[in-house]
Amino acid sequence: MAIKTLDDLFTHMLQDVYYAENQIAKTLPEMMAKAANPMLKEGFRAHIEETRDQIKRLEQVFQALGRTPQGVTCQAVLGLIEEGQDLIGQIEDRDVLDAAVIASAQAIAHYEVTRYGTLIAWAQQLGHKETVDQKQLGHQAIIDLLQLSLDEEKDQDRKLTALAESKVNRQAA
Amino acid sequence: MAIKTLDDLFTHMLQDVYYAENQIAKTLPEMMAKAANPMLKEGFRAHIEETRDQIKRLEQVFQALGRTPQGVTCQAVLGLIEEGQDLIGQIEDRDVLDAAVIASAQAIAHYEVTRYGTLIAWAQQLGHKETVDQKQLGHQAIIDLLQLSLDEEKDQDRKLTALAESKVNRQAA
Repeated sequence: MAIKTLDDLFTHMLQDVYYAENQIAKTLPEMMAKAANPMLKEGFRAHIEETRDQIKRLEQVFQALGRTPQGVTCQAVLGLIEEGQDLIGQIEDRDVLDAAVIASAQAIAHYEVTRYGTLIAWAQQLGHKETVDQKQLGHQAIIDLLQLSLDEEKDQDRKLTALAESKVNRQAA
Repeated sequence: MAIKTLDDLFTHMLQDVYYAENQIAKTLPEMMAKAANPMLKEGFRAHIEETRDQIKRLEQVFQALGRTPQGVTCQAVLGLIEEGQDLIGQIEDRDVLDAAVIASAQAIAHYEVTRYGTLIAWAQQLGHKETVDQKQLGHQAIIDLLQLSLDEEKDQDRKLTALAESKVNRQAA
């Protein structure tokens, strides 16, 4: 698909994030399996559910745009996942491993935060244009779905920071 | 280097970020060259300077730890840069291109935010341990250097959001 307009760019990024979320859904169970701290393990369990919801929300956004859900290869998430796997594979000490697992999960959460933030900003702009053109394709519904996922990822990042600072880093030190 | 302790993990991540910052220093001038909006171009010019400072600060952190500055391949930043280049290469319209350039720069800024945040949390923990062990290797100085870079990246992300929302996205739509 050629990217000629902001609409095209939005669709392309939506496909990128759809691919990324599906990769993340595959990698989170591996991270959960590696985590030693029970609170960290439980946090991953909950986040796997959230990630499934985020994938469903993206599918709803595709539907709202009259498009079939489809991914495009996202090199960024592949790099983030590969780097996390490399790092985790080099560590035996379980407390140090937990600190590394948290860092890797936070890097992924930050990637999602930046992409959902961008998608929302673009959807807002496309929504303004619609209003001016007197069309209503329901961009507010799209923005609301993306905002839920953005909030979840910011929350995931905050929870991981709290767990690292209150428990995991202390045990690793 | 085997990663056995939180100290080792900190050093490994420092090397990862050092590699990443050097890659970012190479890619920012390409992004600046692609940017059409004069404020965006000027923002990149300023951020190239900041990135050079961030590299110098990392070298000071290595020095404080008695280590030679050295990078380890950071797949995450390579993926982020590759994805940005791919995206930018697919767009001809200059306003749509600016929106994509901003999104790519924000993804990189978020990666730096997460890594500096992690390094600071680990340095704080290592500093606490030092105080308990009655050693003083100057972790506060290290934290202060990393915090300056973290603040710059958060600020870079905010500035890009402001520029996107006030000007670039509107022109792209």
